[in-house]
Amino acid sequence: MPHISQRGADMPASPIRKLVPLAEKAKAKGLKVYHLNIGQPDIPTPQVAMDAMRAVDRKVLEYSPSEGNRSLREKLTGYYAGFNIEVDPSDIIITTGGSEAVSFSFMACLDPGDEIIVPEPAYANYMAFAISSGVVIKTVPSFIEEGFALPPLEKFEELITPRTKAILICNPNNPTGYLYTRREMEQIRDLVKKYDLFLFSDEVYREFCYTEAPYVSALNLEGIEENVILVDSVSKRYSECGIRIGAIITKNRQVRESVMKWCQARLSPPLIGQIIAEASLNTPADYMRNVYNEYLERRNFLVEGINRIPGCYTPTPMGAFYTVARLPIDDADRFCAWCLEQFEYEGQTVMMAPASGFYANPTLGKNEVRIAYVLNREDLGKALTVLEKALEKYKLTVNG
Amino acid sequence: MPHISQRGADMPASPIRKLVPLAEKAKAKGLKVYHLNIGQPDIPTPQVAMDAMRAVDRKVLEYSPSEGNRSLREKLTGYYAGFNIEVDPSDIIITTGGSEAVSFSFMACLDPGDEIIVPEPAYANYMAFAISSGVVIKTVPSFIEEGFALPPLEKFEELITPRTKAILICNPNNPTGYLYTRREMEQIRDLVKKYDLFLFSDEVYREFCYTEAPYVSALNLEGIEENVILVDSVSKRYSECGIRIGAIITKNRQVRESVMKWCQARLSPPLIGQIIAEASLNTPADYMRNVYNEYLERRNFLVEGINRIPGCYTPTPMGAFYTVARLPIDDADRFCAWCLEQFEYEGQTVMMAPASGFYANPTLGKNEVRIAYVLNREDLGKALTVLEKALEKYKLTVNG
Repeated sequence: MPHISQRGADMPASPIRKLVPLAEKAKAKGLKVYHLNIGQPDIPTPQVAMDAMRAVDRKVLEYSPSEGNRSLREKLTGYYAGFNIEVDPSDIIITTGGSEAVSFSFMACLDPGDEIIVPEPAYANYMAFAISSGVVIKTVPSFIEEGFALPPLEKFEELITPRTKAILICNPNNPTGYLYTRREMEQIRDLVKKYDLFLFSDEVYREFCYTEAPYVSALNLEGIEENVILVDSVSKRYSECGIRIGAIITKNRQVRESVMKWCQARLSPPLIGQIIAEASLNTPADYMRNVYNEYLERRNFLVEGINRIPGCYTPTPMGAFYTVARLPIDDADRFCAWCLEQFEYEGQTVMMAPASGFYANPTLGKNEVRIAYVLNREDLGKALTVLEKALEKYKLTVNG
Repeated sequence: MPHISQRGADMPASPIRKLVPLAEKAKAKGLKVYHLNIGQPDIPTPQVAMDAMRAVDRKVLEYSPSEGNRSLREKLTGYYAGFNIEVDPSDIIITTGGSEAVSFSFMACLDPGDEIIVPEPAYANYMAFAISSGVVIKTVPSFIEEGFALPPLEKFEELITPRTKAILICNPNNPTGYLYTRREMEQIRDLVKKYDLFLFSDEVYREFCYTEAPYVSALNLEGIEENVILVDSVSKRYSECGIRIGAIITKNRQVRESVMKWCQARLSPPLIGQIIAEASLNTPADYMRNVYNEYLERRNFLVEGINRIPGCYTPTPMGAFYTVARLPIDDADRFCAWCLEQFEYEGQTVMMAPASGFYANPTLGKNEVRIAYVLNREDLGKALTVLEKALEKYKLTVNG
């Protein structure tokens, strides 16, 4: 057999993937596993979206334009205007999920060997897209004690080299739930301007901001309009992760032209997904409000619950539907595996994402986990009880 | 503004893309443009596929597994068995179209700088996927005079270096419609074996073979089972290009594991597309027979029609729904643009794909075009008349 590529070898194995077979075994044993590990909301997809899919009245499910359907891009401009983001349909390119938006942004803007600075903990798959496009991610740590606030600009500046070409942020943040303040966004702007960098801003969780402070989009920052590439996706806001519809939004024409080369190579984003996404933009306000309230209550419930468990701490996330929690353990990878392999409480256990997968620095986040609040409150409550019991037992049998 | 990546600059501009704005202008002038340039069938998508989409009964359009739904992969094994391709569900990974299957195959198997040998003319987007994964395509020419048969093995061997890691074929071929004979497939096998190469085999047009000779899949070749990576897609066979469902099929476990890293990074292939694709596998035999007969008749009609035009020649393609034709002109790029910009016959004109886009060698295929027979016969007939008139006028006014 021919020698296989080693580039995947550099890719950090997903911390969740290692646990998946363990969770399957736990279920096979008859255990109820509470999935606190995933970003798959349990919220029903809006009815208007389902109706649009069922009403598709075409003879041929043909290719759509490589940049996405015009009607969807037009409708999105109205959606963004609601967040004070003023764009034209031509500023928007539809992608196959937010994943492709990140991947094509890297391909379009960066040459192999170019460097991107990312605050960590960060969404693990950014690393995979960086490796696939041959670019290098350098990380600046943020800390749970500071609620994962933006690290000081000096920490970014220490990493800047002649190959530094971009800053990448996720706002509101996955995995921390942190929402950058206006002051922080302006600091990022100043940095981007000073070194003439691209700013990739992943804002797929913008619907879910639980604070009085406004959500500030990177596209709202003055003076760096040509530098900003916004990454978006309908997955989370309409609970339709499976349709694979995202977008790249940028006012930089050269970037769009560069992105389009890769879009044309893969021919077309999903047609049915675009139809569903377009209809989703008509989702009634009360659906969005109910979803928002539901996540807000879950967040409050979860954060209080975690902070009540002895030795546990999580800051209060201001957005998205994740939080990073510190547990009274040494090694979250080991603990999370142990919960699935060797623990049960009244026929139940929990699956969490060890935070190690979100840090490039192997010394950071060893005692942290990411917890998603995509379960209903009843299940969240049970999961918290299970977690508390697990920590008690783990202390006695393993750490003890 | 930061300096933008130049890697897209190496990418050959699609020969069709340059013509798209010209076609739009021609239509804006009121001309009827016959699209002989695209691989978008006009055949209706099977009713069972449309019904399955409308019957989707889920509350949440959630992520599907990164490797694709188990039920689809199971059903595909039965489909492949019908072509004497014996595979397990675990040998199949569902991708976002055949495009992603090619791209992930390159990423999984090849390191940056590795070389792939491809007979040309070849599907233009292979080049884009090669550039995006940093691998190098080297081409061996095939010739219209020989009906685009497999070039002699010595021509491949002349290109082999220590970096050569793979052969890539498309069978039946886009753009030529050529179907490799059993003897040719065995020659490819011998080459793959001798140099221990990967064999990427794009077989998305297998339904459309118009000869008594059998279609020989790369997965039917003995002795190179671990070397073969088959690329597939439901787009063409069920006229559902827009759903973006393809597959990688390989018996090589290490390759599958490597592919899965990239699959996990992009989370999931399209959910609704998978539901449609799975239902499509129940398409009644008479639909497939009718589609087959329709393409066969169109092929015969088109080939006869082209060969009747003075100075034109095309071999009879044995598969797919394209043919490459030689025209009595010097520069097909110029002629195709002229047809859209400066010609009309009774309010009509034609759009064809200049073959230059399918050759890496800039001296080859200058007087060739790719013609797709995805139009009904009445329109094909009109398009042929327009082409004949265009060639007459072009000879007088430009070449004359």
